[in-house]
Amino acid sequence: MTGSTGAHVLHQPHLPIDAQELLSHSGVQAAGRRLEGLIRHTPTVRSDDLDRSAGARLWLKAENLQRGGSFKIRGALLAVERLAASGSRGLVAQSTGNHAISVALAARDHGLPAVLVLPCNAAPMKIRRIQDAGAEVILAGTVLAERMTIVDELRAERGLDVVDPYQDPYVVTGQGTATAELLDQVDAAGGRLDSVVLPVGGGSAVAGACLATAGPDGRRTVAVIAAEPAAVPALTQAMRSGHPVTVPVGTTIADGLRPDRIGQLPFDLAHGTVADVLMIEESEIAEAMCLALTHARLLVEPAAATALAAALRLGRADDEIHDIGVVLTGGNVEAELVARTLAEHAGRPTFPLT
Amino acid sequence: MTGSTGAHVLHQPHLPIDAQELLSHSGVQAAGRRLEGLIRHTPTVRSDDLDRSAGARLWLKAENLQRGGSFKIRGALLAVERLAASGSRGLVAQSTGNHAISVALAARDHGLPAVLVLPCNAAPMKIRRIQDAGAEVILAGTVLAERMTIVDELRAERGLDVVDPYQDPYVVTGQGTATAELLDQVDAAGGRLDSVVLPVGGGSAVAGACLATAGPDGRRTVAVIAAEPAAVPALTQAMRSGHPVTVPVGTTIADGLRPDRIGQLPFDLAHGTVADVLMIEESEIAEAMCLALTHARLLVEPAAATALAAALRLGRADDEIHDIGVVLTGGNVEAELVARTLAEHAGRPTFPLT
Repeated sequence: MTGSTGAHVLHQPHLPIDAQELLSHSGVQAAGRRLEGLIRHTPTVRSDDLDRSAGARLWLKAENLQRGGSFKIRGALLAVERLAASGSRGLVAQSTGNHAISVALAARDHGLPAVLVLPCNAAPMKIRRIQDAGAEVILAGTVLAERMTIVDELRAERGLDVVDPYQDPYVVTGQGTATAELLDQVDAAGGRLDSVVLPVGGGSAVAGACLATAGPDGRRTVAVIAAEPAAVPALTQAMRSGHPVTVPVGTTIADGLRPDRIGQLPFDLAHGTVADVLMIEESEIAEAMCLALTHARLLVEPAAATALAAALRLGRADDEIHDIGVVLTGGNVEAELVARTLAEHAGRPTFPLT
Repeated sequence: MTGSTGAHVLHQPHLPIDAQELLSHSGVQAAGRRLEGLIRHTPTVRSDDLDRSAGARLWLKAENLQRGGSFKIRGALLAVERLAASGSRGLVAQSTGNHAISVALAARDHGLPAVLVLPCNAAPMKIRRIQDAGAEVILAGTVLAERMTIVDELRAERGLDVVDPYQDPYVVTGQGTATAELLDQVDAAGGRLDSVVLPVGGGSAVAGACLATAGPDGRRTVAVIAAEPAAVPALTQAMRSGHPVTVPVGTTIADGLRPDRIGQLPFDLAHGTVADVLMIEESEIAEAMCLALTHARLLVEPAAATALAAALRLGRADDEIHDIGVVLTGGNVEAELVARTLAEHAGRPTFPLT
């Protein structure tokens, strides 16, 4: 076990994931088996219209249809299960929203109380979903450091166990199962991905994808592409600096990608493995959100649209790229934002069919 | 073969569906096997939020993700394949839009020209999709009889074969495969439907569902519920009259459900089998379209939302109904309409979570 010496240590042999396997390709496979029946097996969606718009075949892993509305339930379930088995009395986590929703749902599954620390500018529907799951919400500042301070206080004062969205190896390994499923589904459909694109907030999605694409023999045949808002280039700056750095946070509609610093663990896994990091403009995010809706008939949140926008840019720019996987990480978005974005883009002469 | 004596009669033995099996449960099963690989195997989507809003478990067959954006590709492919094998030189069909898109795509698959006759108030995106598939569009009036007149003229003048959306037994049998797949998917997930809800335009969806739910032994265990806009109560009036009647067309956003008369063949199949016909108000259609989006993260067109609205009404009204299947028939809807509907409903205090 990693970082856990709870009183109920005897329960640990029942856990199906060998701690030695965490943060590896085989660990992701084991996590996928453990999650069977606990999460939804989301479809990989194709759209001829979107393919035409992208100039490539796009394979969309529709984690917006996942339980809790995002792929983050995967890692949260594994981490919370481990903590519950270790005798945890309660949980605390910071998040821009989706990890918090997922921890709240997983905590409810295990009968544990949970406190979730979100930024003041969190999406209101994400706050409501956490409260609907019976958990406590605390709003604190807008940057990661402010939330971390509250988490540290709650851990010390209330004896809560932290479910870190970027540093917990169960979380990161669990997030990798989304990409692993996508690869399996493309394979079953007779396809072969050139690359897979994931959005970057704290980095767990990309880090998980690096594990999932390693291949059982360590040979990587699928390039991992990271997409982040140009307004919050946390991975781009970290790659340039050789270590995580805190970046100024510009304005972005991608609330899920506002963490101003990539986690150390995700950075260590991504550095040297991620083939490219694309910085996506706000107009591209909005366009991709509209195209997901009108072409693929899927409602995705701006974070997921950021990955789709990167795939569109890749496909349009490079004739050698034929098949691109996109993990549509979530669909927790305000109806108001969707209406506004659609209304702005729907009026354009080239929209919705290009 | 039914009604076909084309020059290429020798091709007919290659057709996999025995004409004797059409319009039966086994015919739907055969149609499903024939369509494998030609259409998308669309997912059945679940949403905890939607279940809570409905007071029942809803199983959403996401045919909005189907090729061409609707379930109508199913019947069109089978009918056009049969006509192509019979030596057809070209096709003509009338439709409010989705059958026309599907015939255009199927015609292109077989290298046949196609003329599609739509009402003047057809959804613009449906017209564009037909033209994108390389087919000719003629707009004629707003009621069924006006379109039928044009179809008859084109058949006589140009020697085109008609692909009727309601009367063709290949079409109706093919449409039944959507419900058949839904039943299989619910079964595989360990569920059991009390009822399945389908929208009524010309009636092929409901008629196909009557075939699909008959059961191999003819025993029906799933109630077929029909949903139509209160503004165009074609099935309700036909049921009352004992035969199809032409009804006055009120204003409805459900462009796909504007046919002012149910087809004779669908009526014959539905009459005595459909358990109930629900007349859905415009506000219910709009609400359901919004809930599909924000709760299930699926973009559906108003016709599909009409079926979802009926399921919501059923689930909320009857505690004995636990599991409702809904065929979300299509997703071809204008971005402008979605933006407007969302903006109107998103402002309500009870929206999006109830």
